[in-house]
Amino acid sequence: MRNKEKKYAKLYERERNKINEKLFNALKNRKPESLYKPSDYILSNSGKRLRPILVLFSAKATGGNFKSVYNAALSVEMLHNFTLIHDDIMDNADLRRGKKTLHKLYDLNTAILAGDSLLSIAYEYLLKDCKINAREAVSAFTQGLIEVCEGQSLDTEFEKRFEVSLDEYLVMIRKKTAALAMMCCKLGAILSNAKKSDVEALANYGLNLGIAFQIQDDLLDIMGDEKEIGKTVGGDLIVGKKTFLFIKAFEKAKGTYKKDLLKMIKNKGISPDKVEYFKEMFIKLGVIDDAKYEIKNYTDKALKSISSLTNKDEIGFFIWLADSLIERNK
Amino acid sequence: MRNKEKKYAKLYERERNKINEKLFNALKNRKPESLYKPSDYILSNSGKRLRPILVLFSAKATGGNFKSVYNAALSVEMLHNFTLIHDDIMDNADLRRGKKTLHKLYDLNTAILAGDSLLSIAYEYLLKDCKINAREAVSAFTQGLIEVCEGQSLDTEFEKRFEVSLDEYLVMIRKKTAALAMMCCKLGAILSNAKKSDVEALANYGLNLGIAFQIQDDLLDIMGDEKEIGKTVGGDLIVGKKTFLFIKAFEKAKGTYKKDLLKMIKNKGISPDKVEYFKEMFIKLGVIDDAKYEIKNYTDKALKSISSLTNKDEIGFFIWLADSLIERNK
Repeated sequence: MRNKEKKYAKLYERERNKINEKLFNALKNRKPESLYKPSDYILSNSGKRLRPILVLFSAKATGGNFKSVYNAALSVEMLHNFTLIHDDIMDNADLRRGKKTLHKLYDLNTAILAGDSLLSIAYEYLLKDCKINAREAVSAFTQGLIEVCEGQSLDTEFEKRFEVSLDEYLVMIRKKTAALAMMCCKLGAILSNAKKSDVEALANYGLNLGIAFQIQDDLLDIMGDEKEIGKTVGGDLIVGKKTFLFIKAFEKAKGTYKKDLLKMIKNKGISPDKVEYFKEMFIKLGVIDDAKYEIKNYTDKALKSISSLTNKDEIGFFIWLADSLIERNK
Repeated sequence: MRNKEKKYAKLYERERNKINEKLFNALKNRKPESLYKPSDYILSNSGKRLRPILVLFSAKATGGNFKSVYNAALSVEMLHNFTLIHDDIMDNADLRRGKKTLHKLYDLNTAILAGDSLLSIAYEYLLKDCKINAREAVSAFTQGLIEVCEGQSLDTEFEKRFEVSLDEYLVMIRKKTAALAMMCCKLGAILSNAKKSDVEALANYGLNLGIAFQIQDDLLDIMGDEKEIGKTVGGDLIVGKKTFLFIKAFEKAKGTYKKDLLKMIKNKGISPDKVEYFKEMFIKLGVIDDAKYEIKNYTDKALKSISSLTNKDEIGFFIWLADSLIERNK
């Protein structure tokens, strides 16, 4: 197993590098420069490229090959980066992965238009690989886009609202994060003309992996290491985000804890020096364990779904990927 | 001919009303309301609906029927309105057709996301009518979107630049305005499985009509009637836009006229009380006639292109449409 893990990690890294290279070149010769240079700056970041990887391996797992879906793989990363550009404007964020956000480096108008344009190029790239099942593939892509917008809208709505239930939170991350991972898996399968049950198996894998991924993100925000996660520990609490941990804590807390959580809502955040106190509170209330339980729960669902894939030889990578995402520290 | 004109005008109005009704209902039951209500407000305006009309009649002219392309017709209007929402943010506009712009009625974040989401729904509607030629249809739609973004970027770039040549201006309006009209004609034809020469004939009709339409818009801005055009006469000059008229005048002017045009560039606009003076200048320099000549020129190109359509019975509407756009006063 140890050797297999190494093989998968190497394979991921090799494909990640290829994706990076292709992304770095995707907009190089397009004109006008005033439009494409800002998008190029965003595409040249050093992300995990998890979404394109899902497209590639879903295609391979259902009888296709990497080569015939590289453009589709790029398209989902472009779509993802379009959401990052516009989300950063809405969050008024200064930095992303230690680099200036687009609207800070240029200006608001440039960032809005760069986002729009990146989405248009995403569709162009997707279409390059739509030799078969074009309508189905574009439809899956579009459905993913619609859900991301709806998820972002709910996220904004929740920030303004006083209380948010766990169910509402789950609907939101399902749309904002998981729908895109699901779409990537579906897309790879559709473009390989996979049979329906395999498309479903991969889609549910992506969906549940996406939910686990987001709860893990919420967890890392408070339990992670500042250097590893590349941002301030407790950042979600500081800006008053109602994460899985916060909502769970709010359900369970009584007395002083409840009062302090209420205060966070009222003040729309806490001061950085309170982060350590909230971390202790979360541990004592058992919500760190709750989060770990749910991450395990959704990962298990993902693994159960992928186990029904027709081609059993291809399941290994998806298991390894799910495991390594659970164990990630950034 | 008089009777035929009436028939076409009636047909346009009938279809425009149908499009309006469908647009008013398109987002009614979608959730979350926080996302779709703002877009619904924008779709419920009272535009010309020229773009969906082009889709419908291009489909009919190439062997299709209205019924099978209504969703595609709605999709181009949604795409158009997505551009209006984001353009209004970039122009910091308070009003559109006498109604508050979206970012003024709500806020910046709501407007950005409503625009993004409307574009996603546009693709969804387009796909509903992609029973054949899906890849080709989505590709034409996407190409239109890409060009609109590039045109908007050039427009912004030209605002910051000192001098813009007429050729550069023509490239810009070709992308920003005409590419979308061209796409609408292409789309209707592609979805009706039209033969290549008919797709081309309609595409060139749309392209040239679009260019004529934009120059006409530039002309109406200064020669139109305030009540008819629904905005301040000379608005383009007041905000310092380098329109067809301005660029032509700058080419021709000498002496005081040249100095005053230079001043407009330097000050990025003129005060409203100078509009009448600039109007006189434009008349004296002959650039009003130049604009009229070019409108006629591009309209003639559009008519020449449509004359090669296989089904001669269907040409009448397109001729009437081009004529009525030339003669429009708003």
